[in-house]
Amino acid sequence: MGYFDGIEPVEFDARGDGITSFRHYDPDATVMGKRLEDHLRFAVAWWHGFAWPGGDPFGGQTFQRPWFGDTMKDAKAKADAAFDLFAILGQPFFCFHDADIRPEGATFAESRRNLEEMVDYIGGKMEAGGPKLLWGTANLFSHRRYMAGAATNPDPDVFAYAAATVKSCIDATQKLGGQNYVLWGGREGYETLLNTDLARERQQAGRFLQMVVDYARKIGFDGTILIEPKPQEPTKHQYDHDVATVYGFLKEFGLEGEVKVNVEQGHAILAGHSFEHELALAASLGILGSIDMNRNDYQSGWDTDQFPNNVPEVALAYYEILRAGGFTTGGTNFDAKLRRQSLDPVDLVAAHVGAMDVCARGLKAAVALLEDGELERLRADRYAGWDGVAAKAMLDGSLEEAAALVEERSIEPEPRSGRQERLEAIVNRFV
Amino acid sequence: MGYFDGIEPVEFDARGDGITSFRHYDPDATVMGKRLEDHLRFAVAWWHGFAWPGGDPFGGQTFQRPWFGDTMKDAKAKADAAFDLFAILGQPFFCFHDADIRPEGATFAESRRNLEEMVDYIGGKMEAGGPKLLWGTANLFSHRRYMAGAATNPDPDVFAYAAATVKSCIDATQKLGGQNYVLWGGREGYETLLNTDLARERQQAGRFLQMVVDYARKIGFDGTILIEPKPQEPTKHQYDHDVATVYGFLKEFGLEGEVKVNVEQGHAILAGHSFEHELALAASLGILGSIDMNRNDYQSGWDTDQFPNNVPEVALAYYEILRAGGFTTGGTNFDAKLRRQSLDPVDLVAAHVGAMDVCARGLKAAVALLEDGELERLRADRYAGWDGVAAKAMLDGSLEEAAALVEERSIEPEPRSGRQERLEAIVNRFV
Amino acid sequence: MGYFDGIEPVEFDARGDGITSFRHYDPDATVMGKRLEDHLRFAVAWWHGFAWPGGDPFGGQTFQRPWFGDTMKDAKAKADAAFDLFAILGQPFFCFHDADIRPEGATFAESRRNLEEMVDYIGGKMEAGGPKLLWGTANLFSHRRYMAGAATNPDPDVFAYAAATVKSCIDATQKLGGQNYVLWGGREGYETLLNTDLARERQQAGRFLQMVVDYARKIGFDGTILIEPKPQEPTKHQYDHDVATVYGFLKEFGLEGEVKVNVEQGHAILAGHSFEHELALAASLGILGSIDMNRNDYQSGWDTDQFPNNVPEVALAYYEILRAGGFTTGGTNFDAKLRRQSLDPVDLVAAHVGAMDVCARGLKAAVALLEDGELERLRADRYAGWDGVAAKAMLDGSLEEAAALVEERSIEPEPRSGRQERLEAIVNRFV
Amino acid sequence: MGYFDGIEPVEFDARGDGITSFRHYDPDATVMGKRLEDHLRFAVAWWHGFAWPGGDPFGGQTFQRPWFGDTMKDAKAKADAAFDLFAILGQPFFCFHDADIRPEGATFAESRRNLEEMVDYIGGKMEAGGPKLLWGTANLFSHRRYMAGAATNPDPDVFAYAAATVKSCIDATQKLGGQNYVLWGGREGYETLLNTDLARERQQAGRFLQMVVDYARKIGFDGTILIEPKPQEPTKHQYDHDVATVYGFLKEFGLEGEVKVNVEQGHAILAGHSFEHELALAASLGILGSIDMNRNDYQSGWDTDQFPNNVPEVALAYYEILRAGGFTTGGTNFDAKLRRQSLDPVDLVAAHVGAMDVCARGLKAAVALLEDGELERLRADRYAGWDGVAAKAMLDGSLEEAAALVEERSIEPEPRSGRQERLEAIVNRFV
Repeated sequence: MGYFDGIEPVEFDARGDGITSFRHYDPDATVMGKRLEDHLRFAVAWWHGFAWPGGDPFGGQTFQRPWFGDTMKDAKAKADAAFDLFAILGQPFFCFHDADIRPEGATFAESRRNLEEMVDYIGGKMEAGGPKLLWGTANLFSHRRYMAGAATNPDPDVFAYAAATVKSCIDATQKLGGQNYVLWGGREGYETLLNTDLARERQQAGRFLQMVVDYARKIGFDGTILIEPKPQEPTKHQYDHDVATVYGFLKEFGLEGEVKVNVEQGHAILAGHSFEHELALAASLGILGSIDMNRNDYQSGWDTDQFPNNVPEVALAYYEILRAGGFTTGGTNFDAKLRRQSLDPVDLVAAHVGAMDVCARGLKAAVALLEDGELERLRADRYAGWDGVAAKAMLDGSLEEAAALVEERSIEPEPRSGRQERLEAIVNRFV
Repeated sequence: MGYFDGIEPVEFDARGDGITSFRHYDPDATVMGKRLEDHLRFAVAWWHGFAWPGGDPFGGQTFQRPWFGDTMKDAKAKADAAFDLFAILGQPFFCFHDADIRPEGATFAESRRNLEEMVDYIGGKMEAGGPKLLWGTANLFSHRRYMAGAATNPDPDVFAYAAATVKSCIDATQKLGGQNYVLWGGREGYETLLNTDLARERQQAGRFLQMVVDYARKIGFDGTILIEPKPQEPTKHQYDHDVATVYGFLKEFGLEGEVKVNVEQGHAILAGHSFEHELALAASLGILGSIDMNRNDYQSGWDTDQFPNNVPEVALAYYEILRAGGFTTGGTNFDAKLRRQSLDPVDLVAAHVGAMDVCARGLKAAVALLEDGELERLRADRYAGWDGVAAKAMLDGSLEEAAALVEERSIEPEPRSGRQERLEAIVNRFV
Repeated sequence: MGYFDGIEPVEFDARGDGITSFRHYDPDATVMGKRLEDHLRFAVAWWHGFAWPGGDPFGGQTFQRPWFGDTMKDAKAKADAAFDLFAILGQPFFCFHDADIRPEGATFAESRRNLEEMVDYIGGKMEAGGPKLLWGTANLFSHRRYMAGAATNPDPDVFAYAAATVKSCIDATQKLGGQNYVLWGGREGYETLLNTDLARERQQAGRFLQMVVDYARKIGFDGTILIEPKPQEPTKHQYDHDVATVYGFLKEFGLEGEVKVNVEQGHAILAGHSFEHELALAASLGILGSIDMNRNDYQSGWDTDQFPNNVPEVALAYYEILRAGGFTTGGTNFDAKLRRQSLDPVDLVAAHVGAMDVCARGLKAAVALLEDGELERLRADRYAGWDGVAAKAMLDGSLEEAAALVEERSIEPEPRSGRQERLEAIVNRFV
Repeated sequence: MGYFDGIEPVEFDARGDGITSFRHYDPDATVMGKRLEDHLRFAVAWWHGFAWPGGDPFGGQTFQRPWFGDTMKDAKAKADAAFDLFAILGQPFFCFHDADIRPEGATFAESRRNLEEMVDYIGGKMEAGGPKLLWGTANLFSHRRYMAGAATNPDPDVFAYAAATVKSCIDATQKLGGQNYVLWGGREGYETLLNTDLARERQQAGRFLQMVVDYARKIGFDGTILIEPKPQEPTKHQYDHDVATVYGFLKEFGLEGEVKVNVEQGHAILAGHSFEHELALAASLGILGSIDMNRNDYQSGWDTDQFPNNVPEVALAYYEILRAGGFTTGGTNFDAKLRRQSLDPVDLVAAHVGAMDVCARGLKAAVALLEDGELERLRADRYAGWDGVAAKAMLDGSLEEAAALVEERSIEPEPRSGRQERLEAIVNRFV
């Protein structure tokens, strides 16, 4: 008997309750020439949905999933339950870490064999009609061996172990037809500068990433390799702090053409940015890849990974994604966990349904705002002065030339309104 | 009669009060083969000391300086008072913005002429025995013409005006023998993404910086050009967010060999970093230039620019600077302002004396910690595994090779203590 | 010729642009038996709209209002412009500080006479059909005399000056028929504990508030006296930190039956609370009075006082207000300022129109959510166990009795889902 | 063979290393007429030292303590190890939760019996010369039954369970001669307002506290009952937010004479306060009881519970405690945990030694500052104006009388310097 027995597949019903039916997410509805499903490219994450026990730093497990355990049998029961939820939700993708889908073995080799067996098992379920793999990734942070980092560990054995693990996960991702491969540097960072050699650790991280890129290309993986920025937690300082930091790192190692970013709302917030900022910045730098659409609580100082629930905020995120041309290999993954008091199977369903609806509303609002066009016309108008020949020439010239203009022409710039409140009112017409 | 009349020059006296005498800052004391003065290279900032009226967003002027006013006469009286304070403190450097030392003119040309006249006036006072110029800079943020940015403004006229202004300030800095030239992008950022073209504004910023570098080199300025990172305030998002962001920007425009950073404690804190992090990172990236040694209040969410007063924190900052080889053209500038209730001339003196003492204690502690050597031995020891031939080979090899090692050798890394508390206790022996 | 000439009165038009017409705020539409205007009770604030020059800590005035100046003539021109804007917006209330409406005099007596003259002038305009006064208040923070606090100042002369000022402002409020009187302790707090006597300052604050209550009652003021909590800025620590702190203060001085709170979203955020938290808490303590409906930027660490623009957030605020029975003497004041780049008259109109629309949408959503009733049924259901006789008896009993039950009945509580995601989905049906 | 075998008892040695010997903490040294040990009253906390496995939200156990397990045998081995550490450190007190010292039973009765057996076991070790009990407390937050709160739970069964648990812990504390009993409302708060009845939950909390007070007095417990404020984490909002909030709560239920606060640096920081603020405030309200002396990381947004390491900060905390008369039943508990990479037995010793030294330095600095007296003279001088007869009369008078003075005497207050920088320099003479 299944964990989700008695819960019906979720259908679109504009007059439904948004819990057992979608009120806004109609996968087949078309906007801007594309089905909603193909715009949003939803993925369900294995870790929080099926592996997380509901603990926090002050308390232990609250969830009682029948598949919790350390055996291959448990792992398969978990996979069965996952595909049951996928069938209920009907989303097109899922994501996983190795540690989510296989039990840890006594040795690396055993862990690898467990992974391979589970990849076959999951592959079978995918062939039977389940969703596709948006991305795979390696968990290089939970086990105590990684307590001081993976690629950036002071111990070369850990570097080797991490390399072996990532190789096995790229192999798994490739085998399951994954469209991206993600690296989140869970403990690539430090707890105290006093024991840390920043220069050396960055060199290690750069080499590791180059190895990953080389290997993926060598085996013919044609998906996108993504780094997921985060500024802190679990460590005091994480090296992949935010989009700008990752860009500098990629430039340093000449990898800005090979690797993109997977941006998460919660991580953006922790870094002091809005989500739309990180997306717009990544797009402007040519490295926007995919997103984790989960929110942080503005009053909590850690990563709360909540399902999104604020449509205007979500709309601004999709607006930047659409301006950048929409997703290619990327998609909308929920790196979101239930609140630990949400104990029931229906909570897991409802949380995803609510989130998918919020995203669908947000995307449709973003489309409408873009199609309306006023916002973009006003933006372009604001910079229109730069379209002139003289302005372009000045930008290509020297400081002295620009300076000379000022006295020659007695330039005294006349400020123009930035119109922020009017722009916000325009947005509010659509969200 | 002078504003500081009756206040005696501050001398070193180990048994003094730290207000009218230095208890710790003995300029001529030698540590690590260098005089304290030459290690610390203190600079007094013109803006907060002489130009700031004591206002905040909820209240106006509290200070009543006799030189407040908009005439050249006021500007000269201000310069006289500044050099009076310099004579009392005896610090080797000062810093200024154009707007600090000259009244704004009705036109750019008049502002420039005012600046030139004041440069001559100040130059005369320097020749008469005053301190040297650590750096000059342009105020591209206070006047309403810059409300939407300077180099990144949507209006090319503002770009031109900013270029002319910076040119005049580089000229002034060169004329006064300044050892660095600083760019703080006070309003290079945005208030709302809705009216902002990030890609275009970054291009403008990149070109502007290139023009600045080209001009400085052309006129034979052999000082260091510095960008001062700050993440927010006054704008919601400032482009030069932190050291890592500036590095990425420099790399994008190929300027990482030309430009370094001026790091401020308060700005580091606003960006979610410790000061020592930003210093260590800049050093590891080869772009550490100079510092603003003022602190933020950890409970306030804006730039409080207070004089430093916590010796252990200051010691960790100088420790990173010393590890990086110490200052070359850079120094310790106080971008610090009196609390607005500190009305008296003696407050301005005492604030600097207290801060210089705190820095001197911090530097001496850092020297002692470095000379002791245990901390560095433990750091090196932590990474010793990477010194082996096999480890180096692995780092130069491929992912498959590293992965193969794990199964071949049945690697299971053995975690070693990070010893953080012991390292902190070592530090506490010296601070 | 008027500042707002050419701008037409704003009418409701559901298909309008939300800038020159209201799309959602139809004052006469009725929900829950009351007109929208009577639910929302909008007030326009004099200070940010008419007195604020557009400065910030890094730059000066950007706005160029024809009425800026220090004369009575300027003050009257400002009042004329204010009533012109009121006529355009049609909102039912306004609010002011003394310093907003009259020039500072050379002496207190002159300031008082200026205030009295302006009260008469404004009273005349109100009689001619303008909005009513929601509340008056005294500016006890901008002038340098208040730099170290007003009622809590170390100097008794300042206490006296503050008392005289508040008396004149209560008189003005009474004369203009104000429905509330607000005290915001702008500088009742400290910059450094080192010079502060917390116990003494709290005594002063308690006495001052008692004097205010006594005087207001003595002169027959039958409005509500309100304290506006804020945790920081301009001082490092403000005594009226948040709703809970104000409640403790009122209890200490026996004033919890006399004084309520005016809660601001931005101040709630600075204190680490959601707006709805502060409202629900105030309601549960019986001290909810009125609101300032302006938002802070979640990425900025200071009070940004922006016009509200997020409907779901605003809906949750009104939901708590409606659950508490709605406003009585209180209302929705916008303590909101234009962004300093929003230079044009139309920006001031549009900002208010957009904000009023956001509030109207929020209120209507809150009404719908309340009328739907599911959320409240689920809340009540969660606590239903406490309705039993045994549970009530236990609550009235002793620790031993409660403890005895556990072993007698072998109690092992069974956790029930908190259903957070489902509740959020319910809310999203309406916002 | 013991876990700490080979580690010698820590002695005072002013020339030692601060890791294996105390450089500053000489228990028998006397300042202000009291031994350092009697001033500081150090306590070691059982939970982080002996029960915490080293996990965080992104990774599991790193520590491998031989006593980890769920049996009574493990519990006794843990107690043996604890007393071994106590013997090494020689501190006068310890603290515990029930859950730290006994395994959870299958029923409440079994848990209670386990507790009683362990209390006897520990009591025996105390008689044999171990430290005393500073305070006991109940863990009402780790088990899933408490996921929605203890006293404030929607389920009366949980209230009963919590009551039974606290009763058993007060009994245990009384039996072991504990000098205080602490309540930390670990999950007394909420995750979402949407399912929460604030008024009802506060009533439950008030009744619960009254029951606790009544029971403690009834059984003759003459120690102090303490609430430990914390603003957030694990829940989004904790009811005992900060000292001011707890004070209001105590006033509401008439318990301000019965209950004091246990203030923690990390919790103060999370609430947006400095530690010294919370201490000074509690002292001024008459509710200062005891402290948890552990620090948070200023760059991390959660409770990091690190051992203190900044002497100037610690000095300001003890300064407020000394100004309030020093500890009576309270003391200095370290609610501090090793960093999870600090794996070795010596790390646990060194962390405590370093912290005790930091506290001893801080206390001695505070004593010197107090004995010097200049800071207090300047503070008193700042308020001297209030000592006058007229000022006192004004404070006892009415608003009209105070107002009348201003015009009668033409009062225009003259601001005086707040001297913050000079005061900070005075402090820096001693820290």
